[in-house]
Amino acid sequence: MRERELLQSIYKNASLSSAIRLGPGDDMGELMIGNQRILCSVDQLIVGTHVTLETPPTLIGRKAIARCFSDIAAMGATPVGSLMTACLPSEVTNSWCNEVFSGAKEVAEKWGGPIFGGDIASTDRTAVFTVTAIATPGTQSVLRTGAQNGDYICITGQLGNSIAGHHLSFTPRIKEAQELLKTLGSDLHSMIDISDGLGQDASHLTSESLQLVIDTDLLPLREGATVEGAIGDGEDYELLFTCAVKPPSHLATVIGRVEFGEGTVLTTAGNDISTCGWVHT
Amino acid sequence: MRERELLQSIYKNASLSSAIRLGPGDDMGELMIGNQRILCSVDQLIVGTHVTLETPPTLIGRKAIARCFSDIAAMGATPVGSLMTACLPSEVTNSWCNEVFSGAKEVAEKWGGPIFGGDIASTDRTAVFTVTAIATPGTQSVLRTGAQNGDYICITGQLGNSIAGHHLSFTPRIKEAQELLKTLGSDLHSMIDISDGLGQDASHLTSESLQLVIDTDLLPLREGATVEGAIGDGEDYELLFTCAVKPPSHLATVIGRVEFGEGTVLTTAGNDISTCGWVHT
Repeated sequence: MRERELLQSIYKNASLSSAIRLGPGDDMGELMIGNQRILCSVDQLIVGTHVTLETPPTLIGRKAIARCFSDIAAMGATPVGSLMTACLPSEVTNSWCNEVFSGAKEVAEKWGGPIFGGDIASTDRTAVFTVTAIATPGTQSVLRTGAQNGDYICITGQLGNSIAGHHLSFTPRIKEAQELLKTLGSDLHSMIDISDGLGQDASHLTSESLQLVIDTDLLPLREGATVEGAIGDGEDYELLFTCAVKPPSHLATVIGRVEFGEGTVLTTAGNDISTCGWVHT
Repeated sequence: MRERELLQSIYKNASLSSAIRLGPGDDMGELMIGNQRILCSVDQLIVGTHVTLETPPTLIGRKAIARCFSDIAAMGATPVGSLMTACLPSEVTNSWCNEVFSGAKEVAEKWGGPIFGGDIASTDRTAVFTVTAIATPGTQSVLRTGAQNGDYICITGQLGNSIAGHHLSFTPRIKEAQELLKTLGSDLHSMIDISDGLGQDASHLTSESLQLVIDTDLLPLREGATVEGAIGDGEDYELLFTCAVKPPSHLATVIGRVEFGEGTVLTTAGNDISTCGWVHT
Protein backbone atom coordinates (compact mmCIF):
# COMPACT_ATOMS: atom_id res chain seq x y z
CA MET A 1 0.00 0.00 0.00
CA ARG A 2 2.99 2.30 -0.44
CA GLU A 3 1.31 4.29 -3.19
CA ARG A 4 -1.65 5.28 -1.06
CA GLU A 5 0.46 6.10 2.00
CA LEU A 6 2.78 8.24 -0.08
CA LEU A 7 -0.08 9.97 -1.85
CA GLN A 8 -1.60 10.86 1.48
CA SER A 9 1.59 12.16 3.05
CA ILE A 10 2.88 13.95 -0.02
CA TYR A 11 -0.16 15.56 -1.48
CA LYS A 12 -2.66 16.07 1.31
CA ASN A 13 -0.90 18.86 3.15
CA ALA A 14 -0.16 20.90 0.07
CA SER A 15 -0.26 24.54 1.04
CA LEU A 16 -2.26 25.99 -1.78
CA SER A 17 -2.67 29.41 -3.32
CA SER A 18 -5.90 31.26 -4.02
CA ALA A 19 -5.68 30.18 -7.69
CA ILE A 20 -6.07 26.54 -6.65
CA ARG A 21 -9.73 25.70 -6.18
CA LEU A 22 -9.32 21.97 -5.79
CA GLY A 23 -6.09 20.38 -4.60
CA PRO A 24 -4.88 16.78 -4.45
CA GLY A 25 -7.35 14.05 -3.48
CA ASP A 26 -9.88 14.05 -6.29
CA ASP A 27 -9.67 12.80 -9.89
CA MET A 28 -8.37 16.17 -11.09
CA GLY A 29 -7.13 19.42 -9.54
CA GLU A 30 -8.87 22.70 -10.37
CA LEU A 31 -7.31 26.10 -11.01
CA MET A 32 -9.04 29.46 -11.35
CA ILE A 33 -7.13 31.57 -13.88
CA GLY A 34 -8.71 34.94 -14.55
CA ASN A 35 -12.39 34.02 -14.62
CA GLN A 36 -11.75 30.62 -16.18
CA ARG A 37 -11.83 27.30 -14.30
CA ILE A 38 -9.25 24.76 -15.54
CA LEU A 39 -8.95 21.11 -14.51
CA CYS A 40 -5.64 19.21 -14.67
CA SER A 41 -4.60 15.64 -13.95
CA VAL A 42 -1.59 13.46 -14.63
CA ASP A 43 -1.25 9.71 -14.98
CA GLN A 44 1.64 7.32 -15.61
CA LEU A 45 1.53 4.21 -17.77
CA ILE A 46 4.29 1.73 -16.91
CA VAL A 47 5.31 -0.86 -19.48
CA GLY A 48 5.50 -4.10 -17.50
CA THR A 49 2.66 -3.11 -15.16
CA HIS A 50 -0.24 -1.63 -17.13
CA VAL A 51 0.82 -3.11 -20.47
CA THR A 52 3.73 -5.31 -21.67
CA LEU A 53 6.29 -5.00 -24.46
CA GLU A 54 4.15 -7.58 -26.31
CA THR A 55 1.11 -5.25 -26.28
CA PRO A 56 0.62 -3.68 -29.73
CA PRO A 57 2.31 -0.25 -29.40
CA THR A 58 -0.60 1.75 -30.82
CA LEU A 59 -2.76 0.25 -28.03
CA ILE A 60 -0.14 1.24 -25.43
CA GLY A 61 -0.43 4.85 -26.57
CA ARG A 62 -4.20 4.61 -26.72
CA LYS A 63 -4.32 3.31 -23.14
CA ALA A 64 -1.96 6.03 -21.84
CA ILE A 65 -4.39 8.69 -23.09
CA ALA A 66 -7.56 6.76 -22.17
CA ARG A 67 -6.50 6.21 -18.55
CA CYS A 68 -5.82 9.89 -18.04
CA PHE A 69 -8.95 11.03 -19.89
CA SER A 70 -11.01 8.71 -17.66
CA ASP A 71 -10.22 11.23 -14.89
CA ILE A 72 -11.80 13.93 -17.07
CA ALA A 73 -14.96 11.80 -17.32
CA ALA A 74 -14.98 11.30 -13.54
CA MET A 75 -15.25 15.08 -13.05
CA GLY A 76 -17.96 15.52 -15.71
CA ALA A 77 -15.49 17.73 -17.63
CA THR A 78 -14.49 18.33 -21.27
CA PRO A 79 -10.94 17.72 -22.63
CA VAL A 80 -9.05 20.66 -24.13
CA GLY A 81 -5.50 19.39 -24.61
CA SER A 82 -2.84 17.02 -23.32
CA LEU A 83 0.91 16.64 -22.84
CA MET A 84 2.65 13.29 -23.18
CA THR A 85 6.19 12.31 -22.17
CA ALA A 86 8.20 9.15 -22.78
CA CYS A 87 10.99 7.75 -20.65
CA LEU A 88 12.60 5.10 -22.84
CA PRO A 89 15.07 2.26 -22.29
CA SER A 90 17.67 1.59 -24.99
CA GLU A 91 16.10 -1.69 -26.13
CA VAL A 92 12.98 -0.06 -27.60
CA THR A 93 13.22 1.26 -31.15
CA ASN A 94 12.24 4.67 -32.49
CA SER A 95 9.63 2.99 -34.65
CA TRP A 96 8.02 1.31 -31.61
CA CYS A 97 7.92 4.67 -29.86
CA ASN A 98 6.47 6.41 -32.91
CA GLU A 99 3.71 3.80 -33.02
CA VAL A 100 2.93 4.36 -29.32
CA PHE A 101 2.56 8.10 -29.97
CA SER A 102 0.58 7.46 -33.15
CA GLY A 103 -1.99 5.50 -31.12
CA ALA A 104 -2.02 8.19 -28.46
CA LYS A 105 -2.38 11.11 -30.86
CA GLU A 106 -5.27 9.49 -32.69
CA VAL A 107 -7.50 9.12 -29.64
CA ALA A 108 -6.35 12.36 -27.98
CA GLU A 109 -7.55 14.26 -31.06
CA LYS A 110 -10.70 12.18 -31.45
CA TRP A 111 -11.69 12.80 -27.84
CA GLY A 112 -11.03 16.54 -28.07
CA GLY A 113 -7.73 16.85 -26.16
CA PRO A 114 -4.89 16.84 -28.75
CA ILE A 115 -1.29 16.45 -27.59
CA PHE A 116 0.38 19.88 -27.69
CA GLY A 117 3.66 19.21 -25.91
CA GLY A 118 5.87 16.67 -24.23
CA ASP A 119 9.36 15.49 -23.38
CA ILE A 120 11.53 12.48 -24.26
CA ALA A 121 14.17 11.07 -21.90
CA SER A 122 16.27 7.92 -21.58
CA THR A 123 16.21 5.41 -18.75
CA ASP A 124 17.96 2.12 -18.06
CA ARG A 125 15.02 -0.21 -18.07
CA THR A 126 11.25 0.35 -17.85
CA ALA A 127 9.46 2.47 -20.41
CA VAL A 128 7.11 4.99 -18.79
CA PHE A 129 4.62 7.27 -20.53
CA THR A 130 3.17 10.17 -18.56
CA VAL A 131 0.05 12.00 -19.75
CA THR A 132 -1.17 15.34 -18.42
CA ALA A 133 -4.76 16.26 -19.29
CA ILE A 134 -6.19 19.78 -19.36
CA ALA A 135 -9.97 20.13 -19.27
CA THR A 136 -12.79 22.56 -18.58
CA PRO A 137 -15.45 21.74 -15.97
CA GLY A 138 -19.15 21.42 -16.71
CA THR A 139 -21.70 23.46 -14.76
CA GLN A 140 -20.15 21.83 -11.70
CA SER A 141 -17.10 19.60 -11.05
CA VAL A 142 -18.45 16.33 -9.71
CA LEU A 143 -16.27 15.45 -6.71
CA ARG A 144 -15.59 12.22 -4.85
CA THR A 145 -16.97 13.78 -1.71
CA GLY A 146 -20.66 14.63 -1.72
CA ALA A 147 -22.50 11.32 -1.32
CA GLN A 148 -25.66 11.67 0.81
CA ASN A 149 -27.69 9.25 2.90
CA GLY A 150 -30.27 7.54 0.72
CA ASP A 151 -28.39 8.09 -2.57
CA TYR A 152 -28.53 5.45 -5.27
CA ILE A 153 -25.13 3.91 -6.05
CA CYS A 154 -24.77 3.50 -9.80
CA ILE A 155 -22.29 2.24 -12.37
CA THR A 156 -21.90 2.77 -16.11
CA GLY A 157 -21.19 -0.23 -18.36
CA GLN A 158 -20.00 -3.53 -16.95
CA LEU A 159 -17.41 -4.75 -14.48
CA GLY A 160 -14.75 -7.45 -14.24
CA ASN A 161 -12.42 -9.40 -16.54
CA SER A 162 -11.05 -6.20 -18.08
CA ILE A 163 -7.76 -8.01 -18.65
CA ALA A 164 -9.37 -10.00 -21.49
CA GLY A 165 -9.28 -6.88 -23.64
CA HIS A 166 -11.40 -4.03 -22.24
CA HIS A 167 -8.39 -2.38 -20.55
CA LEU A 168 -6.89 -1.74 -24.00
CA SER A 169 -10.06 -0.90 -25.92
CA PHE A 170 -12.22 1.14 -23.55
CA THR A 171 -13.41 4.65 -24.36
CA PRO A 172 -13.37 7.02 -21.39
CA ARG A 173 -16.96 7.78 -20.32
CA ILE A 174 -16.71 11.50 -21.08
CA LYS A 175 -19.96 11.74 -23.05
CA GLU A 176 -21.85 9.59 -20.55
CA ALA A 177 -20.64 11.80 -17.67
CA GLN A 178 -21.74 14.93 -19.48
CA GLU A 179 -25.15 13.38 -20.17
CA LEU A 180 -25.47 12.31 -16.52
CA LEU A 181 -24.62 15.83 -15.40
CA LYS A 182 -27.16 17.29 -17.82
CA THR A 183 -29.90 14.82 -16.80
CA LEU A 184 -29.27 14.68 -13.04
CA GLY A 185 -27.95 18.20 -12.41
CA SER A 186 -27.46 18.84 -8.71
CA ASP A 187 -28.91 15.40 -7.89
CA LEU A 188 -25.57 13.93 -9.08
CA HIS A 189 -23.74 13.99 -5.75
CA SER A 190 -20.40 12.20 -6.15
CA MET A 191 -18.42 10.40 -8.86
CA ILE A 192 -15.16 8.51 -9.45
CA ASP A 193 -13.80 6.29 -12.22
CA ILE A 194 -12.99 2.71 -11.29
CA SER A 195 -9.35 1.93 -11.94
CA ASP A 196 -8.27 -0.01 -8.84
CA GLY A 197 -11.42 -2.11 -8.37
CA LEU A 198 -15.03 -1.42 -7.33
CA GLY A 199 -14.43 -2.11 -3.61
CA GLN A 200 -11.42 0.15 -3.18
CA ASP A 201 -12.65 2.95 -5.39
CA ALA A 202 -16.10 2.92 -3.76
CA SER A 203 -14.35 3.50 -0.43
CA HIS A 204 -13.29 6.95 -1.73
CA LEU A 205 -16.98 7.95 -1.87
CA THR A 206 -17.68 7.06 1.78
CA SER A 207 -17.29 9.44 4.71
CA GLU A 208 -17.01 9.11 8.48
CA SER A 209 -20.76 8.84 8.80
CA LEU A 210 -21.77 7.19 5.52
CA GLN A 211 -21.34 3.68 4.14
CA LEU A 212 -22.01 2.24 0.71
CA VAL A 213 -24.07 -0.97 0.58
CA ILE A 214 -23.80 -2.85 -2.70
CA ASP A 215 -26.13 -5.61 -3.85
CA THR A 216 -23.75 -7.94 -5.69
CA ASP A 217 -26.69 -9.57 -7.48
CA LEU A 218 -27.16 -6.28 -9.33
CA LEU A 219 -23.56 -5.96 -10.61
CA PRO A 220 -23.49 -5.85 -14.42
CA LEU A 221 -20.85 -8.47 -15.32
CA ARG A 222 -18.59 -8.19 -18.35
CA GLU A 223 -18.32 -11.37 -20.43
CA GLY A 224 -16.22 -13.92 -18.54
CA ALA A 225 -16.37 -11.97 -15.26
CA THR A 226 -17.22 -13.38 -11.84
CA VAL A 227 -18.79 -11.36 -9.00
CA GLU A 228 -15.41 -11.41 -7.21
CA GLY A 229 -13.75 -10.08 -10.35
CA ALA A 230 -16.36 -7.34 -10.70
CA ILE A 231 -15.55 -6.23 -7.16
CA GLY A 232 -11.78 -6.45 -7.31
CA ASP A 233 -10.31 -6.90 -10.80
CA GLY A 234 -9.85 -3.20 -11.49
CA GLU A 235 -9.08 -1.41 -14.78
CA ASP A 236 -12.80 -1.12 -15.56
CA TYR A 237 -12.62 2.65 -16.19
CA GLU A 238 -16.37 2.84 -15.61
CA LEU A 239 -18.02 5.66 -13.66
CA LEU A 240 -19.19 4.91 -10.14
CA PHE A 241 -21.51 7.62 -8.86
CA THR A 242 -24.19 8.39 -6.28
CA CYS A 243 -27.34 10.41 -6.91
CA ALA A 244 -30.62 11.35 -5.28
CA VAL A 245 -32.79 10.08 -8.15
CA LYS A 246 -32.46 7.06 -10.41
CA PRO A 247 -30.38 7.74 -13.54
CA PRO A 248 -31.69 6.86 -17.03
CA SER A 249 -31.30 3.08 -17.45
CA HIS A 250 -29.46 3.39 -20.77
CA LEU A 251 -26.66 5.27 -18.96
CA ALA A 252 -26.17 3.31 -15.77
CA THR A 253 -27.23 0.47 -13.48
CA VAL A 254 -28.26 0.95 -9.85
CA ILE A 255 -26.16 -1.40 -7.69
CA GLY A 256 -26.92 -0.24 -4.13
CA ARG A 257 -27.70 2.57 -1.71
CA VAL A 258 -25.81 4.97 0.54
CA GLU A 259 -26.67 4.60 4.24
CA PHE A 260 -25.61 6.05 7.56
CA GLY A 261 -22.61 4.04 8.76
CA GLU A 262 -18.89 4.19 9.37
CA GLY A 263 -17.03 4.68 6.13
CA THR A 264 -17.05 1.14 4.83
CA VAL A 265 -18.21 -0.49 1.62
CA LEU A 266 -20.42 -3.49 2.38
CA THR A 267 -22.30 -6.09 0.40
CA THR A 268 -25.97 -6.64 1.32
CA ALA A 269 -24.69 -9.91 2.89
CA GLY A 270 -22.55 -7.79 5.25
CA ASN A 271 -19.10 -8.42 3.80
CA ASP A 272 -16.66 -5.49 3.93
CA ILE A 273 -15.21 -5.03 0.43
CA SER A 274 -13.52 -1.65 1.06
CA THR A 275 -10.06 -3.00 0.31
CA CYS A 276 -10.90 -5.27 -2.63
CA GLY A 277 -8.88 -4.36 -5.70
CA TRP A 278 -5.41 -3.66 -6.99
CA VAL A 279 -2.68 -4.03 -4.36
CA HIS A 280 -0.40 -1.00 -4.62
CA THR A 281 3.19 -2.01 -3.91
CA MET B 1 20.43 12.13 -31.03
CA ARG B 2 17.43 9.85 -30.54
CA GLU B 3 15.65 12.35 -28.34
CA ARG B 4 15.70 15.11 -30.92
CA GLU B 5 14.73 12.81 -33.79
CA LEU B 6 11.84 11.42 -31.80
CA LEU B 7 10.71 14.83 -30.66
CA GLN B 8 10.63 15.99 -34.24
CA SER B 9 8.76 13.00 -35.60
CA ILE B 10 6.35 12.65 -32.71
CA TYR B 11 5.40 16.16 -31.86
CA LYS B 12 5.89 18.25 -34.99
CA ASN B 13 2.96 16.95 -37.00
CA ALA B 14 0.47 17.21 -34.19
CA SER B 15 -2.89 18.06 -35.70
CA LEU B 16 -4.09 20.73 -33.37
CA SER B 17 -7.45 22.17 -32.44
CA SER B 18 -8.49 25.81 -32.40
CA ALA B 19 -7.92 25.89 -28.62
CA ILE B 20 -4.21 25.25 -29.12
CA ARG B 21 -2.41 28.48 -29.90
CA LEU B 22 1.11 27.16 -29.67
CA GLY B 23 1.95 23.49 -30.22
CA PRO B 24 5.11 21.45 -29.68
CA GLY B 25 8.46 23.03 -30.50
CA ASP B 26 8.81 25.89 -28.04
CA ASP B 27 9.50 25.91 -24.29
CA MET B 28 5.79 25.65 -23.47
CA GLY B 29 2.55 25.01 -25.34
CA GLU B 30 -0.24 27.58 -25.23
CA LEU B 31 -3.98 26.98 -24.93
CA MET B 32 -6.80 29.50 -25.30
CA ILE B 33 -9.61 28.54 -22.91
CA GLY B 34 -12.51 30.96 -22.93
CA ASN B 35 -10.72 34.30 -23.14
CA GLN B 36 -7.78 33.08 -21.04
CA ARG B 37 -4.38 32.11 -22.40
CA ILE B 38 -2.71 29.21 -20.51
CA LEU B 39 0.82 27.90 -20.93
CA CYS B 40 1.78 24.30 -20.10
CA SER B 41 5.02 22.34 -20.15
CA VAL B 42 6.26 19.04 -18.83
CA ASP B 43 9.75 17.87 -17.87
CA GLN B 44 11.22 14.62 -16.56
CA LEU B 45 13.97 14.31 -13.99
CA ILE B 46 15.74 10.94 -14.14
CA VAL B 47 17.68 9.74 -11.09
CA GLY B 48 20.96 8.48 -12.55
CA THR B 49 21.01 11.09 -15.31
CA HIS B 50 20.10 14.52 -13.93
CA VAL B 51 20.88 13.65 -10.30
CA THR B 52 22.10 10.53 -8.48
CA LEU B 53 20.84 8.54 -5.49
CA GLU B 54 23.63 10.28 -3.52
CA THR B 55 22.17 13.74 -4.26
CA PRO B 56 20.39 15.11 -1.15
CA PRO B 57 16.72 14.23 -1.79
CA THR B 58 15.37 17.73 -1.04
CA LEU B 59 17.67 19.03 -3.81
CA ILE B 60 16.37 16.36 -6.20
CA GLY B 61 12.83 17.66 -5.64
CA ARG B 62 14.01 21.25 -5.91
CA LYS B 63 15.70 20.53 -9.24
CA ALA B 64 12.65 18.71 -10.65
CA ILE B 65 10.56 21.86 -10.12
CA ALA B 66 13.33 24.30 -11.09
CA ARG B 67 14.02 22.61 -14.45
CA CYS B 68 10.37 22.76 -15.41
CA PHE B 69 9.86 26.32 -14.13
CA SER B 70 12.87 27.41 -16.20
CA ASP B 71 10.59 26.83 -19.20
CA ILE B 72 8.14 29.32 -17.66
CA ALA B 73 10.97 31.88 -17.47
CA ALA B 74 11.90 31.21 -21.10
CA MET B 75 8.39 32.29 -22.18
CA GLY B 76 8.33 35.40 -19.96
CA ALA B 77 5.38 33.84 -18.11
CA THR B 78 4.12 33.56 -14.52
CA PRO B 79 3.64 30.22 -12.68
CA VAL B 80 0.15 29.32 -11.42
CA GLY B 81 0.41 25.69 -10.35
CA SER B 82 2.15 22.39 -10.96
CA LEU B 83 1.60 18.64 -10.93
CA MET B 84 4.34 16.21 -9.89
CA THR B 85 4.50 12.43 -10.34
CA ALA B 86 6.93 9.85 -9.03
CA CYS B 87 7.81 6.51 -10.59
CA LEU B 88 9.69 4.66 -7.85
CA PRO B 89 11.86 1.54 -7.68
CA SER B 90 11.52 -0.71 -4.63
CA GLU B 91 14.95 0.20 -3.20
CA VAL B 92 13.99 3.78 -2.36
CA THR B 93 12.26 4.40 0.94
CA ASN B 94 9.08 6.35 1.65
CA SER B 95 11.10 8.77 3.72
CA TRP B 96 13.48 9.47 0.80
CA CYS B 97 10.49 10.10 -1.43
CA ASN B 98 8.84 12.36 1.13
CA GLU B 99 12.04 14.42 1.31
CA VAL B 100 12.11 14.74 -2.48
CA PHE B 101 8.55 16.08 -2.45
CA SER B 102 9.30 18.31 0.51
CA GLY B 103 12.08 20.00 -1.47
CA ALA B 104 9.82 20.26 -4.49
CA LYS B 105 6.84 21.68 -2.61
CA GLU B 106 8.91 24.33 -0.91
CA VAL B 107 10.18 25.94 -4.11
CA ALA B 108 6.99 25.36 -6.09
CA GLU B 109 5.11 27.41 -3.49
CA LYS B 110 7.87 30.01 -3.15
CA TRP B 111 7.95 30.56 -6.91
CA GLY B 112 4.16 30.84 -7.18
CA GLY B 113 3.22 27.47 -8.70
CA PRO B 114 2.23 25.13 -5.84
CA ILE B 115 1.81 21.41 -6.50
CA PHE B 116 -1.92 20.64 -6.72
CA GLY B 117 -1.91 17.07 -7.97
CA GLY B 118 0.16 14.08 -8.99
CA ASP B 119 0.49 10.34 -9.26
CA ILE B 120 2.72 7.66 -7.70
CA ALA B 121 3.68 4.44 -9.50
CA SER B 122 6.20 1.63 -9.09
CA THR B 123 8.94 0.64 -11.50
CA ASP B 124 11.72 -1.93 -11.48
CA ARG B 125 14.71 0.37 -11.49
CA THR B 126 15.18 4.07 -12.21
CA ALA B 127 13.31 6.68 -10.21
CA VAL B 128 11.67 9.29 -12.45
CA PHE B 129 9.91 12.49 -11.38
CA THR B 130 7.73 14.29 -13.91
CA VAL B 131 6.65 17.88 -13.38
CA THR B 132 3.90 19.65 -15.33
CA ALA B 133 3.85 23.44 -15.02
CA ILE B 134 0.82 25.67 -15.65
CA ALA B 135 1.46 29.38 -16.22
CA THR B 136 -0.06 32.54 -17.60
CA PRO B 137 1.70 34.50 -20.33
CA GLY B 138 2.86 38.10 -20.01
CA THR B 139 1.78 40.73 -22.53
CA GLN B 140 3.32 38.38 -25.11
CA SER B 141 4.76 34.85 -25.05
CA VAL B 142 8.40 35.16 -26.02
CA LEU B 143 9.03 32.42 -28.58
CA ARG B 144 12.18 30.71 -29.84
CA THR B 145 11.40 31.95 -33.32
CA GLY B 146 11.53 35.70 -33.85
CA ALA B 147 15.24 36.63 -33.96
CA GLN B 148 15.96 39.40 -36.46
CA ASN B 149 19.04 40.46 -38.40
CA GLY B 150 21.09 42.87 -36.28
CA ASP B 151 19.67 41.67 -32.93
CA TYR B 152 21.94 41.60 -29.91
CA ILE B 153 22.45 38.07 -28.52
CA CYS B 154 22.31 38.19 -24.72
CA ILE B 155 22.60 35.90 -21.72
CA THR B 156 21.54 36.21 -18.09
CA GLY B 157 23.97 35.13 -15.35
CA GLN B 158 27.02 33.02 -16.08
CA LEU B 159 27.80 29.88 -18.05
CA GLY B 160 29.74 26.63 -17.56
CA ASN B 161 30.73 24.29 -14.74
CA SER B 162 27.14 23.96 -13.56
CA ILE B 163 27.96 20.45 -12.33
CA ALA B 164 29.96 21.93 -9.42
CA GLY B 165 26.68 22.91 -7.78
CA HIS B 166 24.66 25.42 -9.82
CA HIS B 167 22.50 22.67 -11.39
CA LEU B 168 21.11 21.90 -7.93
CA SER B 169 20.89 25.43 -6.54
CA PHE B 170 19.74 27.65 -9.42
CA THR B 171 16.60 29.74 -9.28
CA PRO B 172 14.66 29.83 -12.56
CA ARG B 173 14.98 33.28 -14.15
CA ILE B 174 11.27 34.04 -13.93
CA LYS B 175 11.63 37.52 -12.41
CA GLU B 176 14.46 38.45 -14.76
CA ALA B 177 12.38 37.38 -17.76
CA GLN B 178 9.44 39.47 -16.59
CA GLU B 179 11.71 42.47 -16.08
CA LEU B 180 13.24 41.97 -19.53
CA LEU B 181 9.79 41.82 -21.06
CA LYS B 182 8.75 44.95 -19.22
CA THR B 183 11.94 46.84 -20.17
CA LEU B 184 12.37 45.67 -23.75
CA GLY B 185 8.73 45.13 -24.75
CA SER B 186 8.40 44.26 -28.43
CA ASP B 187 12.18 44.71 -28.88
CA LEU B 188 12.60 41.33 -27.10
CA HIS B 189 12.46 39.10 -30.17
CA SER B 190 13.29 35.53 -29.12
CA MET B 191 14.18 33.60 -25.97
CA ILE B 192 15.09 30.10 -24.72
CA ASP B 193 16.55 28.69 -21.52
CA ILE B 194 19.89 26.93 -21.78
CA SER B 195 19.63 23.34 -20.62
CA ASP B 196 21.57 21.38 -23.24
CA GLY B 197 24.44 23.84 -23.75
CA LEU B 198 24.83 27.31 -25.29
CA GLY B 199 25.79 26.03 -28.76
CA GLN B 200 22.90 23.61 -29.18
CA ASP B 201 20.26 25.77 -27.58
CA ALA B 202 21.37 28.85 -29.57
CA SER B 203 20.75 26.79 -32.72
CA HIS B 204 17.02 26.79 -31.83
CA LEU B 205 16.98 30.59 -32.29
CA THR B 206 18.45 30.50 -35.82
CA SER B 207 16.40 30.26 -39.01
CA GLU B 208 17.11 29.34 -42.64
CA SER B 209 18.36 32.84 -43.34
CA LEU B 210 19.81 33.90 -39.97
CA GLN B 211 22.91 32.85 -38.06
CA LEU B 212 24.07 33.68 -34.54
CA VAL B 213 27.65 34.92 -34.17
CA ILE B 214 29.00 34.69 -30.62
CA ASP B 215 32.12 36.44 -29.36
CA THR B 216 33.52 33.87 -26.93
CA ASP B 217 35.63 36.57 -25.25
CA LEU B 218 32.37 38.08 -23.99
CA LEU B 219 31.00 34.90 -22.37
CA PRO B 220 30.43 35.42 -18.62
CA LEU B 221 32.15 32.40 -17.06
CA ARG B 222 30.96 30.75 -13.85
CA GLU B 223 33.69 30.03 -11.31
CA GLY B 224 35.82 27.14 -12.52
CA ALA B 225 34.38 27.26 -16.05
CA THR B 226 36.34 27.23 -19.31
CA VAL B 227 35.13 28.80 -22.58
CA GLU B 228 34.56 25.28 -23.94
CA GLY B 229 32.48 24.48 -20.85
CA ALA B 230 30.46 27.68 -21.23
CA ILE B 231 29.61 26.64 -24.79
CA GLY B 232 28.84 22.99 -24.17
CA ASP B 233 28.47 21.99 -20.52
CA GLY B 234 24.71 22.53 -20.32
CA GLU B 235 22.41 22.71 -17.28
CA ASP B 236 23.02 26.47 -16.98
CA TYR B 237 19.28 27.30 -16.92
CA GLU B 238 20.13 30.85 -17.95
CA LEU B 239 18.07 32.80 -20.48
CA LEU B 240 19.50 33.22 -23.96
CA PHE B 241 17.63 35.90 -25.92
CA THR B 242 17.88 38.26 -28.86
CA CYS B 243 16.68 41.86 -28.90
CA ALA B 244 16.81 45.00 -31.03
CA VAL B 245 18.25 47.21 -28.28
CA LYS B 246 20.78 46.51 -25.55
CA PRO B 247 19.24 45.14 -22.33
CA PRO B 248 20.02 46.71 -18.92
CA SER B 249 23.49 45.51 -17.91
CA HIS B 250 22.33 44.30 -14.47
CA LEU B 251 20.03 41.80 -16.20
CA ALA B 252 22.15 40.37 -18.99
CA THR B 253 25.42 40.37 -20.95
CA VAL B 254 25.63 40.94 -24.70
CA ILE B 255 27.60 38.04 -26.23
CA GLY B 256 27.10 38.51 -29.98
CA ARG B 257 24.90 39.57 -32.87
CA VAL B 258 22.38 38.00 -35.22
CA GLU B 259 23.40 38.19 -38.91
CA PHE B 260 22.11 37.02 -42.26
CA GLY B 261 23.42 33.49 -42.77
CA GLU B 262 22.41 29.86 -42.99
CA GLY B 263 21.08 28.66 -39.67
CA THR B 264 24.35 28.03 -37.86
CA VAL B 265 25.82 29.24 -34.59
CA LEU B 266 29.36 30.52 -35.15
CA THR B 267 32.10 32.02 -33.01
CA THR B 268 33.67 35.25 -34.27
CA ALA B 269 36.66 33.03 -35.16
CA GLY B 270 34.35 31.14 -37.56
CA ASN B 271 33.91 27.88 -35.64
CA ASP B 272 30.49 26.22 -35.92
CA ILE B 273 29.27 25.46 -32.38
CA SER B 274 25.66 24.56 -33.33
CA THR B 275 25.98 21.03 -31.99
CA CYS B 276 28.02 21.74 -28.84
CA GLY B 277 26.28 20.47 -25.73
CA TRP B 278 24.57 17.52 -24.17
CA VAL B 279 24.52 14.42 -26.40
CA HIS B 280 21.00 12.97 -26.31
CA THR B 281 21.17 9.18 -26.49
